[in-house]
Amino acid sequence: MTEFGFIDHIRRRFADLPQNGFEGIGDDCAVLPLTEGDSLLFTADLLAEEVHFLRHATSARELGGKALAVNLSDVAAMGARPVATLLSIALPDDAAGRWAEEFMEGYRALSERYGVALVGGDTTRSGSGITVNVTAIGRAVSGRIKRRSDARPGDRIFVAGALGASGAGLRDILAGSPDTPLAAVHRTPEPQVAEGIWFGEQPEVHAMMDLSDGLASDLRHILERSGVGAEVDIEAIPVAEGADLQTAACGGEDYKLLLTADAAAADALCTAFQARFGTPLYPIGRIVATAGLVWMRDGRPEPVDWHGFEHF
Amino acid sequence: MTEFGFIDHIRRRFADLPQNGFEGIGDDCAVLPLTEGDSLLFTADLLAEEVHFLRHATSARELGGKALAVNLSDVAAMGARPVATLLSIALPDDAAGRWAEEFMEGYRALSERYGVALVGGDTTRSGSGITVNVTAIGRAVSGRIKRRSDARPGDRIFVAGALGASGAGLRDILAGSPDTPLAAVHRTPEPQVAEGIWFGEQPEVHAMMDLSDGLASDLRHILERSGVGAEVDIEAIPVAEGADLQTAACGGEDYKLLLTADAAAADALCTAFQARFGTPLYPIGRIVATAGLVWMRDGRPEPVDWHGFEHF
Repeated sequence: MTEFGFIDHIRRRFADLPQNGFEGIGDDCAVLPLTEGDSLLFTADLLAEEVHFLRHATSARELGGKALAVNLSDVAAMGARPVATLLSIALPDDAAGRWAEEFMEGYRALSERYGVALVGGDTTRSGSGITVNVTAIGRAVSGRIKRRSDARPGDRIFVAGALGASGAGLRDILAGSPDTPLAAVHRTPEPQVAEGIWFGEQPEVHAMMDLSDGLASDLRHILERSGVGAEVDIEAIPVAEGADLQTAACGGEDYKLLLTADAAAADALCTAFQARFGTPLYPIGRIVATAGLVWMRDGRPEPVDWHGFEHF
Repeated sequence: MTEFGFIDHIRRRFADLPQNGFEGIGDDCAVLPLTEGDSLLFTADLLAEEVHFLRHATSARELGGKALAVNLSDVAAMGARPVATLLSIALPDDAAGRWAEEFMEGYRALSERYGVALVGGDTTRSGSGITVNVTAIGRAVSGRIKRRSDARPGDRIFVAGALGASGAGLRDILAGSPDTPLAAVHRTPEPQVAEGIWFGEQPEVHAMMDLSDGLASDLRHILERSGVGAEVDIEAIPVAEGADLQTAACGGEDYKLLLTADAAAADALCTAFQARFGTPLYPIGRIVATAGLVWMRDGRPEPVDWHGFEHF
């Protein structure tokens, strides 16, 4: 069973339980609308040693930042502001002292940068590797939340930054070069928190999510949840310096925002984004009514078999 | 550094960050008051293989129930109703199929019994053992929340069930007898959810928490947070069948509620509890103004050196 197969299994088995007002599994975050017009959002990510990181290839401080960053990215991906986290950490004896303190310094630095409180969690001993789970809580005006399910035929598709640097950096790390600039990008992802909140305020933005498993995989989630298809212009995919096109399309952990917006507002959105953040918003394709993801080159379908990666 | 030492370190390092309306670290749950008169409560617990459970001594289904139960207990311990959870689980290859499905069935059965939604989480591969993190969300009328910090000199101290069965069961398991009735209690703890909500509705109940690390350890948290002391009558501690007094006082994972209440209302509270739940509420001592925990026998201090256990 793949990770996504297991999640589907869980979703089906728990579908008939009372939801207690929550919109649950299926988006970057669960959503709880409050009567006061705001919603709270919830997301969790678990990082396991040897699976998500190698202790010799990342510092404790970097890992503390990354564990938080990937969760803040999920909150921002729905147009919400992260407000608090709970941190659970299982530590083997050889990581319980100095390593743990350095980890917390990295976690604190990113918490401070984004104004996020640490409100709870758990610390325990581990009999094997380091495991970290972060649960992040966000808050947004209910009407501004951006869901994966809101893409509409005719929408333009955008990514909010160049892609592939993290995937190329992971390749460097696995090849024994953990000190390249690309490897540093992989170890210290920067969540697009301000960008996500800003997109939340733009009514012409419809669907949004963050790129954690790669464009080729993540865009399919928007398509499935929205019941639509997409044409992506290969030559429009922004490739990060030092990365290649296929890594930009299929590599994971870029944590850039992927979104769709009303085509009529596309040019103005790009101009406003550039003015606000000083970096481009990249249009890369179109949402269409016919299901499926079609890669295009020079306006014609290109038969590439690109997929993102799965963690399970 | 002990577990509690590390938590204190974290609390100090993060104290100057914006709290965004949350009451954070220091109680069974973090609390977020909403403007509508309710509060949301948040807690997280991580279970690691070889530290919190042995795979050969517990079934996947039992572990799924226990992972949820310990979190529901934390929510109930503040007088709140659990409404939703997020579940993160890291699975080695040999637990990814049937084991994972059985785990989810145990998690689902307890979710159904207490009407709790599963709204998110993460599933991933593990390079070593099984790790499970549950974040539970509760809801309560803000004025009914019971905190560790609310014990007052003169209060009576109560436990809402007999103690020591889980600790005695763990001893059986570690001695190679995982099939005794006491071992079953250890593997399948029953959180006092209805009891916790009911105590939340009683204004004469002041401080409350759940017993996870043992009375000798957990009561000290109430004393420290409330700035008070306690006298506990050793002969009044209710010892579960098959357990001994010291295990009842020091063993962990009973998940019974520990509370303090106005002495003038103590008899009525015990009568009402018995009428509502059909089991006794046990008065075990008194809160006093002088700091420290004093064990009493026949009305005189008894020099025992009892402490609960630490996980770290």
